[in-house]
Amino acid sequence: METARLETFSDGVFAIAITLLVLLFERPHLSEGQTLGHVLLHQWPSYASYVVSFVTIGIIWVNHHTLFRHIVRVDRLFLFLNVLFLMAVAFIPYPTSLVAQFIRSSHDARPAALLYGIAMTLMAIFLNTLWQYAARGYRLLAADADRREVSGITRSYWPGAAIYGSATLVALWSPAASVIGYALIALFYVLSSSLWSGSAS
Amino acid sequence: METARLETFSDGVFAIAITLLVLLFERPHLSEGQTLGHVLLHQWPSYASYVVSFVTIGIIWVNHHTLFRHIVRVDRLFLFLNVLFLMAVAFIPYPTSLVAQFIRSSHDARPAALLYGIAMTLMAIFLNTLWQYAARGYRLLAADADRREVSGITRSYWPGAAIYGSATLVALWSPAASVIGYALIALFYVLSSSLWSGSAS
Amino acid sequence: METARLETFSDGVFAIAITLLVLLFERPHLSEGQTLGHVLLHQWPSYASYVVSFVTIGIIWVNHHTLFRHIVRVDRLFLFLNVLFLMAVAFIPYPTSLVAQFIRSSHDARPAALLYGIAMTLMAIFLNTLWQYAARGYRLLAADADRREVSGITRSYWPGAAIYGSATLVALWSPAASVIGYALIALFYVLSSSLWSGSAS
Amino acid sequence: METARLETFSDGVFAIAITLLVLLFERPHLSEGQTLGHVLLHQWPSYASYVVSFVTIGIIWVNHHTLFRHIVRVDRLFLFLNVLFLMAVAFIPYPTSLVAQFIRSSHDARPAALLYGIAMTLMAIFLNTLWQYAARGYRLLAADADRREVSGITRSYWPGAAIYGSATLVALWSPAASVIGYALIALFYVLSSSLWSGSAS
Repeated sequence: METARLETFSDGVFAIAITLLVLLFERPHLSEGQTLGHVLLHQWPSYASYVVSFVTIGIIWVNHHTLFRHIVRVDRLFLFLNVLFLMAVAFIPYPTSLVAQFIRSSHDARPAALLYGIAMTLMAIFLNTLWQYAARGYRLLAADADRREVSGITRSYWPGAAIYGSATLVALWSPAASVIGYALIALFYVLSSSLWSGSAS
Repeated sequence: METARLETFSDGVFAIAITLLVLLFERPHLSEGQTLGHVLLHQWPSYASYVVSFVTIGIIWVNHHTLFRHIVRVDRLFLFLNVLFLMAVAFIPYPTSLVAQFIRSSHDARPAALLYGIAMTLMAIFLNTLWQYAARGYRLLAADADRREVSGITRSYWPGAAIYGSATLVALWSPAASVIGYALIALFYVLSSSLWSGSAS
Repeated sequence: METARLETFSDGVFAIAITLLVLLFERPHLSEGQTLGHVLLHQWPSYASYVVSFVTIGIIWVNHHTLFRHIVRVDRLFLFLNVLFLMAVAFIPYPTSLVAQFIRSSHDARPAALLYGIAMTLMAIFLNTLWQYAARGYRLLAADADRREVSGITRSYWPGAAIYGSATLVALWSPAASVIGYALIALFYVLSSSLWSGSAS
Repeated sequence: METARLETFSDGVFAIAITLLVLLFERPHLSEGQTLGHVLLHQWPSYASYVVSFVTIGIIWVNHHTLFRHIVRVDRLFLFLNVLFLMAVAFIPYPTSLVAQFIRSSHDARPAALLYGIAMTLMAIFLNTLWQYAARGYRLLAADADRREVSGITRSYWPGAAIYGSATLVALWSPAASVIGYALIALFYVLSSSLWSGSAS
């Protein structure tokens, strides 16, 4: 019951953050001699950013969902850890629109890619913290939660922040490479999940 | 339980995408000598686009709703197919605002109508894929799902993508005709559903 | 079950439309010599419009909620009538922002007040249609629904559209008077509900 | 049942208001010679405002959540009191963006900090009113609600409005001090809750 309302609230934030991504597409103001067709083709980084962030938030939602299958109660600190986590999720549309706008700029791609990576790294850290807090000594888990599954999640969450942190550092050297990295992380996760999908339902 | 949270999340995205359509109405900045009355009348394509896209997203929601009456479990691949589908739904407000803004332009109506059609075609393809994946070998359906109803849905979903794809191609020749086509698809669906409505509850 | 998902979806649209009202407050761009304090005081019509539309959408939500206590099943035509109704609700933020922006203009207050009234009148007509369709011959009601309560709702819904229609016509003569009318309708409804509140739960 | 739909609707408004905070980050339009890196560092008040308002809305959500564990029925007046409360919550993104934009301005920080404080004070007053109305004579509470817990909530809610009101008055003297006050209120609440967290679940 407690967890039901928390999940509903969290799902609301996920659904809004993911749908607000469409606002990165600003209605074009055509200058003299520009055609809409040219503008729409020229904004391919917006389509790519939209797809990568949409899939990434979708993956985070699936992960959050997986955690809550094991969590049976909440306390106030957990509620606030969840608020911190949602704060990172709800922020994602902003760096997404920056990457879309500036990835082709020689001077400004770097800070855009860095902010995107920092947001993702924070999100991964907060999600991990949320789980570690709940799982430490089975604080918020069912007493009969499957021990192997629980320790499997615990192990699988450590690399997330490290991988996003590394991709973020790559932005210092090559913003384009780091952005490709963010896309590959999402792609890798979708592919690996699909391979497991027979047994993960 | 699994499907409940997925439906709630999907409904959230539907509800937000459909409500964000109102943002296609930008607050007018009147130039010298322009009156608000004239501007409001002159923006009739915005009202028409709002109605067509609102009803279309409403129809998609009803269809998604219909699928989930038969789906009783989900796996990870299905979750990601659903994310792809929602990605197309959440995108709709953008081409809607482009059609509203550019449909009267001689040069720019074509790309706007094309992008609208591409979004709708992708959405129809993803919805169909979602269902085919769930229904193939009753993978995610109840064992006792009504066989006639299931194969009825399977048959009825193939034409959707083809019809939207055709209307999209029409945009190459006449953007206005394709936009009228998008409106007629929505109207046809509402009318035909209403005729069936006694038996479809 | 059927009605549960429809109510959740409708509540989502209500919640988003009511919260998007805040977007009528644009971040001010101060011109030379303007102070923020002056701008914030000068935008009192925005605060008033925000309050009136927020309370009005709140009232509509309560009414919709009341209908669904009696409705136990849905059919496809009802689903589409509900979509039409939600289309009017989701539109409200736009005329609200127009009234806030133009109510002090001598030329442009009239079309803003008219569009606001037309939106409210349509919303009242669609809500009434929704109920008449469900209640005609107890089509979608429980067989044991309280007959007095049902015919009470049926009677109480006719005046809504007429009252909003009248206030809209007043805008042709005096936009300010019609806007005060919209506010009084909301106030009247809240006050009369509160008087009944002991017995209406 | 009654309270379930009210909670869902309220949670929707909370989730949207908290997620709309991201819109305070406007996509930067770089002027000649400006770099994105400089703009992103220079907008630190936006990050700070985002964090403070996000955590504050999160806290309000937790509090609202706590109230509804004791409330078992609603009446119409309670519904409208809840609408007033949500009206204050949904407004928060606007003063948040004003504080972010103007806190470094010598002339315009004061009205921004004042409006932020007024919004928070109103929100606290409405939340308190909501609870007092429900708890007076156990009007909307379960007959067997824990008397100590109920009177504990009643006592703990009086200071909220007074504390926000005081921080608002501080803005007349020093906008910066009042904004630091708003942040400390949120921080204090999170810390004190965490200390209690063992027993508050």
